[in-house]
Amino acid sequence: MAAPCHGGGGTRMTRFTAADADILREILRWRRDIRHFRPDPLPESLMERLRAAMDLAPSVGNSRPWRVLRVRSPEKRAEMRAIFARENAEAARAYAGERAECYARLKLEGLDCAPEQLAVFTDLDPEAGHGLGRRTMPETLAQSTAMAIQVLWLAARAENIGLGMVSILDPRAVEALFAVPARWRFTAYLCLGRPALADDDLPLIHRCGWQENSPTPWSEA
Amino acid sequence: MAAPCHGGGGTRMTRFTAADADILREILRWRRDIRHFRPDPLPESLMERLRAAMDLAPSVGNSRPWRVLRVRSPEKRAEMRAIFARENAEAARAYAGERAECYARLKLEGLDCAPEQLAVFTDLDPEAGHGLGRRTMPETLAQSTAMAIQVLWLAARAENIGLGMVSILDPRAVEALFAVPARWRFTAYLCLGRPALADDDLPLIHRCGWQENSPTPWSEA
Repeated sequence: MAAPCHGGGGTRMTRFTAADADILREILRWRRDIRHFRPDPLPESLMERLRAAMDLAPSVGNSRPWRVLRVRSPEKRAEMRAIFARENAEAARAYAGERAECYARLKLEGLDCAPEQLAVFTDLDPEAGHGLGRRTMPETLAQSTAMAIQVLWLAARAENIGLGMVSILDPRAVEALFAVPARWRFTAYLCLGRPALADDDLPLIHRCGWQENSPTPWSEA
Repeated sequence: MAAPCHGGGGTRMTRFTAADADILREILRWRRDIRHFRPDPLPESLMERLRAAMDLAPSVGNSRPWRVLRVRSPEKRAEMRAIFARENAEAARAYAGERAECYARLKLEGLDCAPEQLAVFTDLDPEAGHGLGRRTMPETLAQSTAMAIQVLWLAARAENIGLGMVSILDPRAVEALFAVPARWRFTAYLCLGRPALADDDLPLIHRCGWQENSPTPWSEA
């Protein structure tokens, strides 16, 4: 990677090499939604690097609306498993026949043993940013939080840490469980840890035949 | 970067090195919302790499709900500038005094000369994914599109291409302009091109004193 060089006025932007772009592509290519975790704890220094990576995410008007609770309480973790179990049973009822059997075989979360668990919310009225850029599209706040999660996901993968995102949850129940401020909305629950199946990279959703990858063409306008 | 090695059963997941993680961190650190572009066109092979990178984004149930229009029509581009100008004038009225002066100095888009422009939408009822994971949280579709935009942003940065995201727009007006299907919702308008101010990396929003960076601590629960 080329080091940033300094010109007359300010800092010259780093130029990345083709090798750098290849490494990013490999990190993107090997990102997975991980649901099988080894229970051993992650070092605090690693967790701090992941937290700091999220700070580098873009946000509308630099509003940084993501709010992150690091969930350690065994009672709260048990409640999260209960909320998931309830909604997953309900979701399963929407499918019939082979697809129902397939659904039952999917493992959709790693809440049982992920050593680190994060409840992520979006502040719908953050002070930072002074409202810039979101008057007509308040959904840009939720977009910013989603991008910060994606940044965390890639930073974790680059450290060989798996992340699984859980959304089969009643968002109002999660907000109530953590008694968050009224202006916070639940965004996602994230499980982190070392992957337990590092010798098996085929996503369950593919193994099960639920949904293959397909390229998204761009149309012209 | 370590090459993937093959075990008995499947493909062993690549292990990334500390140097790989450092490169990702540099790409994250040097990402900017670019609003000053050189007008020279981007090679088609590069555009195809960027499109393919988006295919690597995560999505709920592998539903891949992002829909991308590559906007080449001069008439459509002019209409987009008009939609922006209207909403930006309206947004400026919300500020007074010094902050209003500051707002007037911000350049909030690069619609005038970005050689590539993408209108990005979210399909609210994609066939792919068969509804998995989004029954209680339909907003996971919009999250997926936001993550795909973030992937595109990083892939572009790693190729030394700038991206600027424009959200000071009336989303219904954009949907009408491109006459998209009723189940598509406008997500963002993206400008891409080579940055014109590569020797000046300080974001305008900082130079102007609008909003400094501030770390987001994680709370415990």
